[in-house]
Amino acid sequence: MKLYDSTLAPNPRRVRIFLAEKGITVPTEQVDIGKAANRQPDYLAKNPMGGVPILELDDGTVIAESVAICRYFEETQPEPPLFGTGAKDRALVEMWQRRMEFEIALAIMQVFRNTHAFFKGRIPQVPEYGEVCRKAAGSRLRWIDGELAGRTFVAGERFTIADITLLVGIDFGRVSDIRITPEQKNLQRWYEQVSSRPSAKA
Amino acid sequence: MKLYDSTLAPNPRRVRIFLAEKGITVPTEQVDIGKAANRQPDYLAKNPMGGVPILELDDGTVIAESVAICRYFEETQPEPPLFGTGAKDRALVEMWQRRMEFEIALAIMQVFRNTHAFFKGRIPQVPEYGEVCRKAAGSRLRWIDGELAGRTFVAGERFTIADITLLVGIDFGRVSDIRITPEQKNLQRWYEQVSSRPSAKA
Repeated sequence: MKLYDSTLAPNPRRVRIFLAEKGITVPTEQVDIGKAANRQPDYLAKNPMGGVPILELDDGTVIAESVAICRYFEETQPEPPLFGTGAKDRALVEMWQRRMEFEIALAIMQVFRNTHAFFKGRIPQVPEYGEVCRKAAGSRLRWIDGELAGRTFVAGERFTIADITLLVGIDFGRVSDIRITPEQKNLQRWYEQVSSRPSAKA
Repeated sequence: MKLYDSTLAPNPRRVRIFLAEKGITVPTEQVDIGKAANRQPDYLAKNPMGGVPILELDDGTVIAESVAICRYFEETQPEPPLFGTGAKDRALVEMWQRRMEFEIALAIMQVFRNTHAFFKGRIPQVPEYGEVCRKAAGSRLRWIDGELAGRTFVAGERFTIADITLLVGIDFGRVSDIRITPEQKNLQRWYEQVSSRPSAKA
């Protein structure tokens, strides 16, 4: 199998952290997204969406979407569980993973897509929408700060994929000047904790 | 347990179709989103995001996010499988569910949110971004039409949650005048097939 990776983009880091937490090593190939290698025909044949990362299995099957790739490894190597255990816990981890993705990481990504020079001429940018998302992201960071007052990790007392999504989202916010504010002490405590895990370097 | 439902919104329909396919009946309560009942303190205490649907378990646990609610029922009643079976298939179903959600349903939803009178004064609308999403949705419908030339359902030969997401997304597109075009024959064939399942009436 082979993971098509990019150290420049946030989504591949989600998979790299997930694999590091599982202790799984996968052969990787860097996709030069700065040179739009992910928009060339041979890559689009593997993933018509052009996104990184993708996981190519030995039988030629291509799995795109970071969370789907993580799900594959969760199924093939359940320990340590990063998607929860049992029906209720799995549903709650999925809820938190989705909230971190839709409410925070996606908002932060949309600020970047709609306001950053990298995407100028690549996609139709709407800076006004980027600013709406910037405000939304700020509001959601305040919300998750409050949530984290009562527990260690995003989905409870165990580190899960929801923490990975939030960590990668927040780190990616820096390039758009979106940051944890000094009064968000629970979020800062959480951030220092998850950032100090060896997997965060992945 | 109780499902907080709304027949006015697209997301609750995803859960209703899922439950119909499983043959599961759950007590429901209608949330009057037209009157913003989902923005009142008692509802926000259950789901701070204010979204419908939510599933309240007998122990008081609240599961928000349609896909997380569906996941709960998939775990408690695996048959018929709507999230795939085995590691590779489950990953591929998740990939397709996410593609249908991010590439199509979300784009259609953003057209509605940013251009429709319903959200005027409720959220900061950016009509220009709505039009970017309208174009994106049209382009993605052309893409999925091509994909469906080679198979019966979105993720292969079995009906899955990915079909539910696409069906609900397309049906919700009507209110924003986003429709399957006459030349999209594979998508039209698929649409007629999934729409004629009894679950589609849910």
